[in-house]
Amino acid sequence: MKIEAVDFFYLSMPVVTDAGDGSQDALVVRVVAGGQVGWGECEASPLVSIAAYVCPMSHGACRPVRDSVLGQDLSSPDDIARIAADLELNSMDLLQTAHTFSGIEMAMWDVLARSQGRPVWQVLGYDRAFPKTPYASMLFGDDPAETLSQARAAVAAGFRAIKCGWGPFGRGSLAADADQLHAAREGLGPDGILLVDAGQIWREDVEAAALRLPVLEQVRTTWLEEPFLAHAYEAYGALAGRSRIALAGGEGAHNVFMARHLIDYGKPGYVQIDCGRIGGIGPAKKVADYAAARGVTYVNHTFTSHLALSASLQPYAGLQHHEICEYPIAPKAVASDLSDGHLLPDANGQIVLPDAPGLGIAASPEGMRPYLVDVEIRAKGRTLYETPAL
Amino acid sequence: MKIEAVDFFYLSMPVVTDAGDGSQDALVVRVVAGGQVGWGECEASPLVSIAAYVCPMSHGACRPVRDSVLGQDLSSPDDIARIAADLELNSMDLLQTAHTFSGIEMAMWDVLARSQGRPVWQVLGYDRAFPKTPYASMLFGDDPAETLSQARAAVAAGFRAIKCGWGPFGRGSLAADADQLHAAREGLGPDGILLVDAGQIWREDVEAAALRLPVLEQVRTTWLEEPFLAHAYEAYGALAGRSRIALAGGEGAHNVFMARHLIDYGKPGYVQIDCGRIGGIGPAKKVADYAAARGVTYVNHTFTSHLALSASLQPYAGLQHHEICEYPIAPKAVASDLSDGHLLPDANGQIVLPDAPGLGIAASPEGMRPYLVDVEIRAKGRTLYETPAL
Repeated sequence: MKIEAVDFFYLSMPVVTDAGDGSQDALVVRVVAGGQVGWGECEASPLVSIAAYVCPMSHGACRPVRDSVLGQDLSSPDDIARIAADLELNSMDLLQTAHTFSGIEMAMWDVLARSQGRPVWQVLGYDRAFPKTPYASMLFGDDPAETLSQARAAVAAGFRAIKCGWGPFGRGSLAADADQLHAAREGLGPDGILLVDAGQIWREDVEAAALRLPVLEQVRTTWLEEPFLAHAYEAYGALAGRSRIALAGGEGAHNVFMARHLIDYGKPGYVQIDCGRIGGIGPAKKVADYAAARGVTYVNHTFTSHLALSASLQPYAGLQHHEICEYPIAPKAVASDLSDGHLLPDANGQIVLPDAPGLGIAASPEGMRPYLVDVEIRAKGRTLYETPAL
Repeated sequence: MKIEAVDFFYLSMPVVTDAGDGSQDALVVRVVAGGQVGWGECEASPLVSIAAYVCPMSHGACRPVRDSVLGQDLSSPDDIARIAADLELNSMDLLQTAHTFSGIEMAMWDVLARSQGRPVWQVLGYDRAFPKTPYASMLFGDDPAETLSQARAAVAAGFRAIKCGWGPFGRGSLAADADQLHAAREGLGPDGILLVDAGQIWREDVEAAALRLPVLEQVRTTWLEEPFLAHAYEAYGALAGRSRIALAGGEGAHNVFMARHLIDYGKPGYVQIDCGRIGGIGPAKKVADYAAARGVTYVNHTFTSHLALSASLQPYAGLQHHEICEYPIAPKAVASDLSDGHLLPDANGQIVLPDAPGLGIAASPEGMRPYLVDVEIRAKGRTLYETPAL
């Protein structure tokens, strides 16, 4: 199979706010090879990722992503790895490359697995997709009362685990953070799994993060996520050495090295990979193997659609004891409408990847259409991109 | 001073080839604050960096670069650092951010220093700008004869140091590489400083790189640059432990962490920073301080214009013993025409940053005009960018 077409569809809610809610827009990718259609999704900033696909070449090591993809053979996982390796050198100096390629790479796996009539996780070498325990991923409320009611709603919806993050957390006093954390625990009940996401708020300030450790411990937090900037491995390592609570991080990794370095130097208990950023499913699988070999638990990072959710679960589907998964509890309509299929909790409240071919999620061109953003990019007298027909 | 305007000018040669020559296009940035005009230059892929400035917001941590810059106060170096820190969180999920911001940041230093009537290196805290020994930066010839004649031409032009890189190097046999290296040494003569740039060709393959060590030693190479991918710190460290030749790297660093980690884990003798990628002059200065404190020699990475060259020399202008500098010997016309001023070797063949205010290089709108690329980016019914008047 040759890759015949790669098309990008920028979808957006009519209004995008500055909330830390990654489901407000989406960049969906459609790949066609050998007549087979596959779908993927890039994180984030659709316009910039489109530009990295179509931009004029700057020099031999700064080529548009397209140049390494279109017309390539796609007949085995080795082809996907070969294309990714070519891209690494061909687009070395184009920083956005990994985000653009991630959605293409997912779609390539979808195409390949569909052509074999197998789910992606089987093509990755797993015999079985184990059930994962979803946590409801939500923003902290503006005040503790809102956090309390959100946590209660998640429990009422059947979740045994919740993650609260962003919002006011870490931006005010220690007492304000403590009130938020107690509200989250109260809403979740004594037995639930409580996860806390600091959204990089302390940058590299280990002491500021350490101040919160006692209350995080008091409310029995399972992990403290992203206390620091994505590359601040030393800060992670220093806090990990002082904390009885496991650290989590890695969503910012845009290649396998970054995830490996976080594991090696930052000593997190959990590594969270966004398949829409790290270059897709192949690199994410490498991180899962690396983490598993070192006693670090792999978790997906997904705050968008169920297409992205399925892609993000594939790399660790077969790792039985890596059982938590992020599950966007209240995505915006664009994220939920862009696929027909959804990964709903089973009778035990768990998420199991389907046995259906490919990613097992049917993208919905009809569902996407109302959100399709008109884009036109022109340079050097040529139209480089125009929103294609859906 | 408030930042009133930020404009991007995409310049390009009429034909861009796949040679590893970064001077074939340029993204020049003009910043106006308090009526003062400053200039900078971003590396690389102009269209994508423009898109990152104007793109619609995806969510609160994925905002266009513009949102953290326009209207901000610019009255001291602290303001520049504050804007950069805000951007780090506001555009956390927009990967291209660092490349876009780098040119803006240079221009902010230019504005600030011009408003104080001082060169940037003084505002950075240096008393003096020490002379640097330029090396002529060139691509390996297609065959050893071409490399030989290029090296001779550089010596004839007064250079005591040359760097050969990319081209066929590392792509063929060990014998072919040896022939190239001997040709370079022969052309340079016995006393010149010979630097070799592998352009990441061995990815993480320490053995492939180590195979070349004996011949690199035989021709008395001062440094072996970028044997591996930018994030492959462990491969750097492993090769450094086996090599009597110093390693060099760091041009791919798009934040201070990456440069620090290369130094800490990769054990290079030289760290090479591109001010057009790492976020500008401020972060580059932090790397220079970090390197100097650890006995690692700082070097600029510059393969474009003299505007970028001046910006790249400022961060280590006052470090007397860090005396080598990269000097593009044969930039394409677009790179040389975009400024009026140029940094020419003095009577000793050395490069000294001028005492003139700001970056000390006058951007030339007239020189740029013939290379100006027409760009238009439209999305959501609005024109987000149109090439502005020069």
